[in-house]
Amino acid sequence: MIKKLLIANRGEIAVRIIRACKELDIETVAVYSEADKEALHVQLADEAYCIGPTSSKDSYLNLTNIVSVAKLTNSDAIHPGYGFLAENADFAELCRECNITFVGPSPEAITQMGTKDVARDTMEEAGVPIVPGSDGIIPSIEKGLSVAEEIGYPVIIKATAGGGGKGIRVARTPEELEKGISMTQQEAATAFGNPGVYLEKFIEDFRHVEIQVLADTHGNVIHLGERDCTIQRRMQKLLEETPSPALDSNIREEMGQAAVKAAQAVNYTGAGTVEFIYDHNAKKFYFMEMNTRIQVEHPVTEMVTGVDLVKEQIRVASGEKLSLTQDEVTFDGWSIECRINAENPSKNFMPSPGRIHTYMPPGGLGVRVDSAVYPGYMIPPFYDSMVAKLITYGATREEAIARMKRALSEFVIEGDGVHTTIPFHLRLLENEKFVSGEFNTKFLEMYNIMETEG
Amino acid sequence: MIKKLLIANRGEIAVRIIRACKELDIETVAVYSEADKEALHVQLADEAYCIGPTSSKDSYLNLTNIVSVAKLTNSDAIHPGYGFLAENADFAELCRECNITFVGPSPEAITQMGTKDVARDTMEEAGVPIVPGSDGIIPSIEKGLSVAEEIGYPVIIKATAGGGGKGIRVARTPEELEKGISMTQQEAATAFGNPGVYLEKFIEDFRHVEIQVLADTHGNVIHLGERDCTIQRRMQKLLEETPSPALDSNIREEMGQAAVKAAQAVNYTGAGTVEFIYDHNAKKFYFMEMNTRIQVEHPVTEMVTGVDLVKEQIRVASGEKLSLTQDEVTFDGWSIECRINAENPSKNFMPSPGRIHTYMPPGGLGVRVDSAVYPGYMIPPFYDSMVAKLITYGATREEAIARMKRALSEFVIEGDGVHTTIPFHLRLLENEKFVSGEFNTKFLEMYNIMETEG
Repeated sequence: MIKKLLIANRGEIAVRIIRACKELDIETVAVYSEADKEALHVQLADEAYCIGPTSSKDSYLNLTNIVSVAKLTNSDAIHPGYGFLAENADFAELCRECNITFVGPSPEAITQMGTKDVARDTMEEAGVPIVPGSDGIIPSIEKGLSVAEEIGYPVIIKATAGGGGKGIRVARTPEELEKGISMTQQEAATAFGNPGVYLEKFIEDFRHVEIQVLADTHGNVIHLGERDCTIQRRMQKLLEETPSPALDSNIREEMGQAAVKAAQAVNYTGAGTVEFIYDHNAKKFYFMEMNTRIQVEHPVTEMVTGVDLVKEQIRVASGEKLSLTQDEVTFDGWSIECRINAENPSKNFMPSPGRIHTYMPPGGLGVRVDSAVYPGYMIPPFYDSMVAKLITYGATREEAIARMKRALSEFVIEGDGVHTTIPFHLRLLENEKFVSGEFNTKFLEMYNIMETEG
Repeated sequence: MIKKLLIANRGEIAVRIIRACKELDIETVAVYSEADKEALHVQLADEAYCIGPTSSKDSYLNLTNIVSVAKLTNSDAIHPGYGFLAENADFAELCRECNITFVGPSPEAITQMGTKDVARDTMEEAGVPIVPGSDGIIPSIEKGLSVAEEIGYPVIIKATAGGGGKGIRVARTPEELEKGISMTQQEAATAFGNPGVYLEKFIEDFRHVEIQVLADTHGNVIHLGERDCTIQRRMQKLLEETPSPALDSNIREEMGQAAVKAAQAVNYTGAGTVEFIYDHNAKKFYFMEMNTRIQVEHPVTEMVTGVDLVKEQIRVASGEKLSLTQDEVTFDGWSIECRINAENPSKNFMPSPGRIHTYMPPGGLGVRVDSAVYPGYMIPPFYDSMVAKLITYGATREEAIARMKRALSEFVIEGDGVHTTIPFHLRLLENEKFVSGEFNTKFLEMYNIMETEG
């Protein structure tokens, strides 16, 4: 078993990982940028080391500094959390070379899933449904035009090195496609150092549904059901829930099996998420991408399955077998997560960092708060604006929603100039369309939640 | 369904009930003493009314003031919480006369269970095991001596009107018994207005195990398993857990059925708890008393069964059927509750009220906090010293303990002169005897947790 673990991250996920380690009796090493000296993860870890200045590039993305701290402190493992280095194959490779256990999949699996056209091909071979599109990277604009003609407009242009909503563009006509291909190639070359793009049919009316998988080094792969992440603003998730109000048990079963196949196809190990486009009209789903890390929204899965996903990651990385088989996975009740960001929802979600003077999280039955905030904490303007995840559990969707409204109304986060997405979520949960469960990823474009009546 | 509910209580249980009401869309009315103007339950309720001065007698025990507020505000129900008026049959009767729904059993059931010798007789008739003892109140010291001779010393003298550890005395010889009977009679006459006492064999090496029951007005009675409350200091519970590490499945089943019989024998309705003395050497259990109210430690049952006990109370009081049958009750995992009291465990648990300047409850997976404390809150010296209940859930006892240690270590409650039982619990959870699960109610007498090494 891992004895000492370095957490190469900050914020709530660093705290989440430290908590799991404490419960497993594993020593913890925090790393932090100069801006994060007073961060909660620094206070909670057994040891903490500054790894560079404020800029992420020089601190949380500084591979060599982080590995040096791990070596210096005799840490036998590194957990990358999400974001930053979590899906960086070079980092996983560097850990391997330095004999440090990387809590995540192999560099090979990261690369296979991180290169979007390779992932698409691999999934097709493995029998996982993919959206109709080009056969890998399009070699020329002419080829792109003929592919689009074949699959039909609208199409979506995707940078193979992109992800998380970046490096994609929609084209509805051949003219838009010509321009779009050039622009996306140029942007991708600059942003990701790889100009390759490919084409897919653009499905406009769909839900974002993803499957949590777990795999060990002994060949066992299981899934822990779905999460519905359809509530997004500019492709950023704001609220997630499980189960999905849109899936029936057949689709759920098929999607779970497809996700297991996806993981098996790349010899996946650890916790991962296979994201699908769910065309709820046609009742068909297509592989979107695989996130080769723990996700922000992992708690909702923990609430309904009772499985501690971060502990499973650590156990699997230690070489242990999964603590349960597919048959032992059970699903009980309903869980919702609201991302509480330091943003002003009335001003186009403008980030609003600042010092928090009053902080009082909600409590009671069925309420979970994952946060790195405390009274007096200064939310820095340099990183992600998420300050807390509020998760509720209920016997039914109705109860989980009622409990979330109750918990949001108790949640106090006050500071100089600090706004949060709490009022947005309160409005959203009153919205009839949301309550009905029938919506797609354009929901927040179509309804200005902050301006419409509940 | 109840539309507006008055909460005749304060502290965390008042907050607990308000939370359940908010989730059920029921309006809430708080009442408070002059000392509780700034209490959290006052802030969270829809309306709040002062019912008298600081003294409980003049405020939280003031039947007529409370019922007047209920009438004035058109509340259709009153929830008494625990303590104060929760087991006062006159109050339940007054509510009935005023056409206000009392969220609890009938005045008759309260009286039958509150009068200890009557309860004993009723249980014996219903076939619930009772400790060998006198046949009701002992009419004379002579009769007492002959009963003691028959059942064998040591014996315990109990005031029929007593309860919660008050009005009881142990006698190991006829001389002690003679003196003890007179003294207990005199004390009981003064304290409870009823000098009646009865005798029971004194079982010294036992565990306190209790069964949660739920009953509706349609004749359905179910149990939700046990809670082990063996960790006590001077008969005050400090830590509770479920399941009990001492019960096997046969005893658990028998005890559950006995509790259901006990409830049926008094036509019980609502949530109640049947407390048993569990003689773990002989593997026998005996009826101790029934608490005709929600209990402090109810959350551990909620964690392993998924049933919201306060919502069930409210539904049953509204005339609805129980939301589940006995067959639908499931038990998953392990849950522990630590009572966080504003007391100094290093100074004989001396109460330490005062103003809290820093308050930061723990969070994350499997952690629940039920509290009425907030930053800046003044803990008044006039009432119970419990300031928070920290509840953890884990797949196993080991995980629930590890999580509790982690959560306790994160919990910050700081104030002028304020001490808490957090250091006590941290020590207790390190104690080998506690970890082994093998202990009896004298555990804390035998081990001075604050002075011994973990």
